[in-house]
Amino acid sequence: MAPAFFRPIDQSAPPSPTKRHTKVSIVGAGNVGMAIAQTILTQDLVDELALVDAKPDTLRGEMLDLQHAAAFLPRTRISASVDYAITTGSDLCIVTAGARQIAGESRLNLLQRNLALFSEIIPGLARHSPDSILLIVSNPVDVLTYVAWKLSGFPPNRVIGSGTNLDSSRFRFLISNHLDVNTQDVQAYIVGEHGDSSVALWSSISVGGVPLLSFLEKQEIAYEKETLEKIRKVVVGSPYEVIRLKGYTSWAIGYSVASLARTLLRDQRRIHPVSVIAKGFYGIEGGDVFLSLPALLGRSGVLAVTNVHLTEEEAQQLRDSAKTILEVQNQLGV
Amino acid sequence: MAPAFFRPIDQSAPPSPTKRHTKVSIVGAGNVGMAIAQTILTQDLVDELALVDAKPDTLRGEMLDLQHAAAFLPRTRISASVDYAITTGSDLCIVTAGARQIAGESRLNLLQRNLALFSEIIPGLARHSPDSILLIVSNPVDVLTYVAWKLSGFPPNRVIGSGTNLDSSRFRFLISNHLDVNTQDVQAYIVGEHGDSSVALWSSISVGGVPLLSFLEKQEIAYEKETLEKIRKVVVGSPYEVIRLKGYTSWAIGYSVASLARTLLRDQRRIHPVSVIAKGFYGIEGGDVFLSLPALLGRSGVLAVTNVHLTEEEAQQLRDSAKTILEVQNQLGV
Amino acid sequence: MAPAFFRPIDQSAPPSPTKRHTKVSIVGAGNVGMAIAQTILTQDLVDELALVDAKPDTLRGEMLDLQHAAAFLPRTRISASVDYAITTGSDLCIVTAGARQIAGESRLNLLQRNLALFSEIIPGLARHSPDSILLIVSNPVDVLTYVAWKLSGFPPNRVIGSGTNLDSSRFRFLISNHLDVNTQDVQAYIVGEHGDSSVALWSSISVGGVPLLSFLEKQEIAYEKETLEKIRKVVVGSPYEVIRLKGYTSWAIGYSVASLARTLLRDQRRIHPVSVIAKGFYGIEGGDVFLSLPALLGRSGVLAVTNVHLTEEEAQQLRDSAKTILEVQNQLGV
Amino acid sequence: MAPAFFRPIDQSAPPSPTKRHTKVSIVGAGNVGMAIAQTILTQDLVDELALVDAKPDTLRGEMLDLQHAAAFLPRTRISASVDYAITTGSDLCIVTAGARQIAGESRLNLLQRNLALFSEIIPGLARHSPDSILLIVSNPVDVLTYVAWKLSGFPPNRVIGSGTNLDSSRFRFLISNHLDVNTQDVQAYIVGEHGDSSVALWSSISVGGVPLLSFLEKQEIAYEKETLEKIRKVVVGSPYEVIRLKGYTSWAIGYSVASLARTLLRDQRRIHPVSVIAKGFYGIEGGDVFLSLPALLGRSGVLAVTNVHLTEEEAQQLRDSAKTILEVQNQLGV
Repeated sequence: MAPAFFRPIDQSAPPSPTKRHTKVSIVGAGNVGMAIAQTILTQDLVDELALVDAKPDTLRGEMLDLQHAAAFLPRTRISASVDYAITTGSDLCIVTAGARQIAGESRLNLLQRNLALFSEIIPGLARHSPDSILLIVSNPVDVLTYVAWKLSGFPPNRVIGSGTNLDSSRFRFLISNHLDVNTQDVQAYIVGEHGDSSVALWSSISVGGVPLLSFLEKQEIAYEKETLEKIRKVVVGSPYEVIRLKGYTSWAIGYSVASLARTLLRDQRRIHPVSVIAKGFYGIEGGDVFLSLPALLGRSGVLAVTNVHLTEEEAQQLRDSAKTILEVQNQLGV
Repeated sequence: MAPAFFRPIDQSAPPSPTKRHTKVSIVGAGNVGMAIAQTILTQDLVDELALVDAKPDTLRGEMLDLQHAAAFLPRTRISASVDYAITTGSDLCIVTAGARQIAGESRLNLLQRNLALFSEIIPGLARHSPDSILLIVSNPVDVLTYVAWKLSGFPPNRVIGSGTNLDSSRFRFLISNHLDVNTQDVQAYIVGEHGDSSVALWSSISVGGVPLLSFLEKQEIAYEKETLEKIRKVVVGSPYEVIRLKGYTSWAIGYSVASLARTLLRDQRRIHPVSVIAKGFYGIEGGDVFLSLPALLGRSGVLAVTNVHLTEEEAQQLRDSAKTILEVQNQLGV
Repeated sequence: MAPAFFRPIDQSAPPSPTKRHTKVSIVGAGNVGMAIAQTILTQDLVDELALVDAKPDTLRGEMLDLQHAAAFLPRTRISASVDYAITTGSDLCIVTAGARQIAGESRLNLLQRNLALFSEIIPGLARHSPDSILLIVSNPVDVLTYVAWKLSGFPPNRVIGSGTNLDSSRFRFLISNHLDVNTQDVQAYIVGEHGDSSVALWSSISVGGVPLLSFLEKQEIAYEKETLEKIRKVVVGSPYEVIRLKGYTSWAIGYSVASLARTLLRDQRRIHPVSVIAKGFYGIEGGDVFLSLPALLGRSGVLAVTNVHLTEEEAQQLRDSAKTILEVQNQLGV
Repeated sequence: MAPAFFRPIDQSAPPSPTKRHTKVSIVGAGNVGMAIAQTILTQDLVDELALVDAKPDTLRGEMLDLQHAAAFLPRTRISASVDYAITTGSDLCIVTAGARQIAGESRLNLLQRNLALFSEIIPGLARHSPDSILLIVSNPVDVLTYVAWKLSGFPPNRVIGSGTNLDSSRFRFLISNHLDVNTQDVQAYIVGEHGDSSVALWSSISVGGVPLLSFLEKQEIAYEKETLEKIRKVVVGSPYEVIRLKGYTSWAIGYSVASLARTLLRDQRRIHPVSVIAKGFYGIEGGDVFLSLPALLGRSGVLAVTNVHLTEEEAQQLRDSAKTILEVQNQLGV
């Protein structure tokens, strides 16, 4: 049917093959991976999307379910396989796969299983897409981003963890909700370790460009520390709450990672709080460690870290986080 | 914090309240309902989105998970409740809730349970949004759209079933894949009952505006009936295959329904194959029955049905479908 | 052809008419008005767009040129007329019409001619769309926004001047260019009178949420006042430069006003520096005067003014601007 | 300011440079070129946009006017120069430059001047972007596309004329307006020479996938040939009418060419009626000639021509057009 319906203009040679297109691979077709895949598709960020998972049935089901929407989307090649060869030539590889905690399992044991998993995933990705950016979403994200960096042999600007990008989004939502203003007009960061010890940068919150704390001070309004600390606690508790209520998190992490993908693939030079190699910043020493700092991202990955001034208390919290992560890395022997 | 940060320009009166905005309510926060909700949000179709479900925990979890993405989306008010009052003033109500088949349960018994469910859902929606459009996604969609029409007391132009809109998308994807062309350049319809007896309109398939069958005839190419029938069978089998593989369908139905929402809310006057009241078309008689026909949709709902010429065989298939659905409706006693 | 091609589902009654849709009217089909119209269309903000101009030929040419692109755009009703009746039921009326300065004409004389023009435009808009928001783009924008407010009889939350929204965009572009970062990650305001005496709010510039000046201070970097003042001068000179080079400005003001339209129509509650009634802010007294302040905008127009702390120097500049504008208004006798 | 505000993560080496990004160059910064540039920007199709024109002032004015909108757009590098070096590494080069007819000048003389102009433009583009696609918009588009093909030495799949893509859009708008249906649901082609002798393909018009003519025949409705011929005449007259009314055409051609750019750059494999090398199709012989046929376009340019069945009358019209164009080419001596 096809050859008759269309005729080439030049019989002597086929059209020269497509040279440049944008390809993203996602490892892990669970709730998180698929929410990322679907958001990236809807936002028309890529020409090709490859899915990898260890379960061939789920994988094929998810691929078909996305392909069936072709009439409602820009044309994107969607493929899926248990074999990493399908990721060949990716611009960006997003890793969401991770072992689940078994009842009674120690955190260290879980990490060791994830380390084993990454030992399979990362070299395959690195081999098939040696120029790609690695974006790690699996938890604990900071340690696993370090692991991915070591296993890939990539330069540090091309290995990024989703880190506190989503925590910061939740933080901004809660502040904006409090003020009844668009969340996109609130600038605010959670940095440090993704998890309970994350650090809220109170001093750099601004609303519509107006610094919130200095506003409160000048207004001689009592520093609403209680309100603010309550907000941070809600942020830290958010993933636990969502998991308790619906069983997992998916939509917000999907949008969050799609937003990072956009900045990276379209060279947007935007600032996101993501997990990057942090040695040398804010007095962090003792070894290579990844944790979230406000980083300038673009087509080459991490372009720079924004030189935010932290209070000494905030800097100390960061150093404490770094130390904890380093200890875990030492225990893991990576 | 809020009153100090912003000051009204006019102390004498608050700003006059927002008069017009676009609100969609979705009943059922399962995989289908949430894929619809997320796609509608990403495509920036509404100012307010209300979710209703019988399970308050899942519902709250899904609401929070969407709200946490506020930093990455245009501002949309997202609310959720087990109480239908939250749907007040909707422009469009999308119903995805439905009972699940119990092992060994007869189809009729399942339908009766769904009927009971709709007796709770539809009057609540109709009372709180008397001017809204009802879009039914729950299965069996044709009978339940009829049920929703009767229970709502709405005029028939404001009660629509998602019908074969998704089947047609799958059909178009498979044809486009065969020809290696953009799916959006393939026009093709599956009409009739949503399910095994759906009717593929071979005579109206066109690619880039070129009628496919008459092309094949003029080329004296043997009518590829086998190929085409194989494609139809794959379409009919698609939901079963996806469910077998991943457990449910979600992404494609989400995009499909979001596409209908767009046409309805933004008055796009586009043609979609959806379930509409079909009495009087193609010799369908014997009672009020809903099944899918290519319908012109806009802000008022169903504006008209496209007057496609069917072969006598196709028309007879439609009439047979109508008869089967009517028998079910009679058994149900609705 | 039409009645046969489509058939209504219900012969007894036509579909109930469309109730809610979004309509924008633009007065003035010159370079500015048309850049706004085209940007609003491309960004899919409205269901109906009405153009009004005194020159019927240009107007019809512009309408046809937009309509001919229908195949590439979402469906939008585009109409045009010299008669204000076509604007009936608008949600937002954008005024770009204005008299051009004649060689040797005094500024006051020009203003009087614009006042005469507005006496024709504004009452027509207000009568046909009594619930609409008026957005004034014509220059001098601050005085003419005041004139529009008086002539319309609208509450002040529904009369807005585009003011320094574009100046602020230019300011942000120049700063972002200096730092090689995405302009959307730079928050910075030009406020006050739109024109030579506009006020740059140095103290509230932030990049990715990091306050720039306090960063510089803490780094003990010499206050780059010279660099910053140079940037402000480039901003003030920008419209003159563009007009000298290409004869008029169009694209940037088009995007700027479309951005305001989006915030207003989709109730985005975003903060924009626009011309609003300023009496009572920062010690501005002596009469009703409009000038640009960072305002929270939504579906009701101006919701509030952001309570930015100004230095005493900045506040004094604002008061001086207000005084100058008031004197002009007194001379005009409005 | 910059080096202090951001700090690199790795002192040993700068981030590896951006490898792949999408670049479009536009030659000619007049109304057509700028409408294309602005639409491409708004639709976020490219990472870099380069403008070339012989008039440095206009060029710089247009560049600044676009750059000033950076706060409202995704980050795109916008550059402009009279020197073709700025186009280096383009994926797509769009040529809108053309000599204007002088009063009393013969068509042949005008063409000779355009030939001289293209002798300057095309080799420069081809040298700086040897792998790019050339998209010619200048008129007479068919002859000039042939000229560009000869001058560039590019294979024919990488030289395309905008041809009747816009005529077809106007055709579809008028039919959709007649039926009050979304223009995107109307498939209809104008093919052949862009201009008075263009050929309307009545037999392949379809609405929502329903072939219009066979519908009319089966309904025994008198072939509305008069209505249809009237529509074709309005299409042919449209550019003349718009030019008479507003002085030039801009918006529709801007959207039309942006639509082609999207299909080409994002490998959409969509069918557009554009000017391609036509020798060998529909009995066109006698030499290399470009005219519009429904072509399948993607990242490699022209992938194939759709094998539409024409009536003998339509095919003869095409051959006549080809002959006329060939005669002109012979006179030109190209």
